[in-house]
Amino acid sequence: MDPRTEEHAEVLVDWSARVEEGDNVVLSVGPDAHELAVAVAEKVGERGGNLVTTYSSMEVGRAYTMAHDGDFDENPEHKLALVENADVFLSIGGGRNTSEGTDIPPETRRAASEANRDISEARMDTDWVSTVHPTRSLAQQAGMSYEAYRDFVYDAVLRDWEELADEMANMKETLDDANEVRIVKEQTDITMQVKDRVAVNSAASVAYDSHNLPSGEVFTAPYATEGEVFFDVPMTIRGERVQDVHLTFEDGEVVDYSAGQNEDVVGEILDTDDGARRLGELGIGMNRGIQQFTDNILFDEKMGDTVHLALGRAYESNIPEDSDDEANDSNVHVDMITDMSEDSHIEVDGEVVQRNGTFRWEDGFEG
Amino acid sequence: MDPRTEEHAEVLVDWSARVEEGDNVVLSVGPDAHELAVAVAEKVGERGGNLVTTYSSMEVGRAYTMAHDGDFDENPEHKLALVENADVFLSIGGGRNTSEGTDIPPETRRAASEANRDISEARMDTDWVSTVHPTRSLAQQAGMSYEAYRDFVYDAVLRDWEELADEMANMKETLDDANEVRIVKEQTDITMQVKDRVAVNSAASVAYDSHNLPSGEVFTAPYATEGEVFFDVPMTIRGERVQDVHLTFEDGEVVDYSAGQNEDVVGEILDTDDGARRLGELGIGMNRGIQQFTDNILFDEKMGDTVHLALGRAYESNIPEDSDDEANDSNVHVDMITDMSEDSHIEVDGEVVQRNGTFRWEDGFEG
Repeated sequence: MDPRTEEHAEVLVDWSARVEEGDNVVLSVGPDAHELAVAVAEKVGERGGNLVTTYSSMEVGRAYTMAHDGDFDENPEHKLALVENADVFLSIGGGRNTSEGTDIPPETRRAASEANRDISEARMDTDWVSTVHPTRSLAQQAGMSYEAYRDFVYDAVLRDWEELADEMANMKETLDDANEVRIVKEQTDITMQVKDRVAVNSAASVAYDSHNLPSGEVFTAPYATEGEVFFDVPMTIRGERVQDVHLTFEDGEVVDYSAGQNEDVVGEILDTDDGARRLGELGIGMNRGIQQFTDNILFDEKMGDTVHLALGRAYESNIPEDSDDEANDSNVHVDMITDMSEDSHIEVDGEVVQRNGTFRWEDGFEG
Repeated sequence: MDPRTEEHAEVLVDWSARVEEGDNVVLSVGPDAHELAVAVAEKVGERGGNLVTTYSSMEVGRAYTMAHDGDFDENPEHKLALVENADVFLSIGGGRNTSEGTDIPPETRRAASEANRDISEARMDTDWVSTVHPTRSLAQQAGMSYEAYRDFVYDAVLRDWEELADEMANMKETLDDANEVRIVKEQTDITMQVKDRVAVNSAASVAYDSHNLPSGEVFTAPYATEGEVFFDVPMTIRGERVQDVHLTFEDGEVVDYSAGQNEDVVGEILDTDDGARRLGELGIGMNRGIQQFTDNILFDEKMGDTVHLALGRAYESNIPEDSDDEANDSNVHVDMITDMSEDSHIEVDGEVVQRNGTFRWEDGFEG
């Protein structure tokens, strides 16, 4: 076993999920994630957690879903009871074909997802963490050799998370104190309000209300967006390659859009519901262990020197508990990413906090 | 996909488990049983069952169990709730190394098993069925090529089960009406009582109280065993090859034993507890799709023209519901098999019912 697999398991169990003696743990294992599952099981055993392993295969799920008549029973009791009685839910992605779900009819997928809504919500009530084991299929999606992809994943995952959390605290504080954020670069000059919203220091641990490993971003829920923004990082949305998206906002809503490729996918997203035309998230990528885009949102949106904005649903964690504000609601949450490493800056209430990828608290910053 | 994999799935879901609309189904998948899992998921979807897939890996289980301090929590609630709310529990074995569990200390294994007792019992209360997907590891255990092993498995599984169930009904009726069974062959002349016990027609379906696929045996719970018996089929018990076991019974208990190989393993079994010295099962193998021994009890004991006797625990299903009799109790149930195809016969109350592998209702029977 690659020694980094054991380190990955240790980060997942101890830093991310904080598994303790007596915790009821569900470990969801992708078909090619076996090695990491073994390493995680060992750590959970050491901590004295109680382990159930589930098998998460898109091929199995697709076969089941497409054979079903589509009238799915709501929240089957055995599935619900498993999750409701879990303290921790660890998902280790790692399939064999990232395109496996592409021919499930959207209405079937929606019906299946709708029928399992309480189960999804119960999972969100656990200390859940999602990660991936580096597989050949994910290497292929990234356009990388398997060896290079493993290096990529472990560079992203095996950080000094404590140190990164401290650094990200600067950004969280800046956003928490802010009224307005402005992002400026090629074809981009956009402002959004963040007053009375609370930023999440997403340090890859449930202790930070952060549920992805790797993480390494600070995000909040903006509103009243104005201006234009250009997303130069290509991504796969609903199985389609979408590139060079340009959005124009007025009064918080998208009023014009274009894309260099698969523009219709952007249109479909915007037409989902009212909330889909508004932003649900502003995220600042701060994980410098991620040095390249790999067409996987788990990694791409955390990359250092990037900003992402999501159309659609906002996270409740960005709304203060005592607030009357409501998080933007939508059935979609689609992240789009822009590179901030060159000819670009982020302003908060008129002050530059990052220029060309360098934060104001870093050496070499040019305000 | 091998078309026989889909047929296997259909037999499992429809004939064996009788999955119906609305059934809550748990599908336990071995690491190399993916193909069969996909086929089974499709069938469960067609029938309108509700599916949860769990991952059953000895390597994961070993890592967890050996890392744990050994003081296991009893019947963790998430695991128990999953099984208690299931109607059907399908296990598809198929790992990568049949020796994976060999270095788990016996006391650790026992403690883990003891702590999960209620969960095991809850599983037995479902319509449970165990089968295996032909894997390279099982082919290796059988000493066969992968292609030959797949043929072997599908010959055993893809039977006309309705027809076999009808034939086995003859044997069940014979045993249900009987007082005494006698088995005679080389180094073997053994009698046992079966009066007031009920035989199970194990036709690989929950409708027959039969939970293995393949099955194809009729079994009952004998007592008051007298005489000697020789088991010429080699088998692996607790990771050791055991061969040519000879047992002598007096007043229902083993009073003498020998073996051609690993005799000490037989001694250990007999010393487990009082019940381990008595028989728990007499089984008549009747699946003629199984033509050779493959060192896997799921198949070996069902082979046509064999008889197996188990030391230890008897099945409750062999005790009539209104009876005061108690099934033989023990912490072990160890099957041993003897070949009945040549120079041998089975007598029931003094009448020969099988000679040299041919039953009295078959052509060529020589009483």
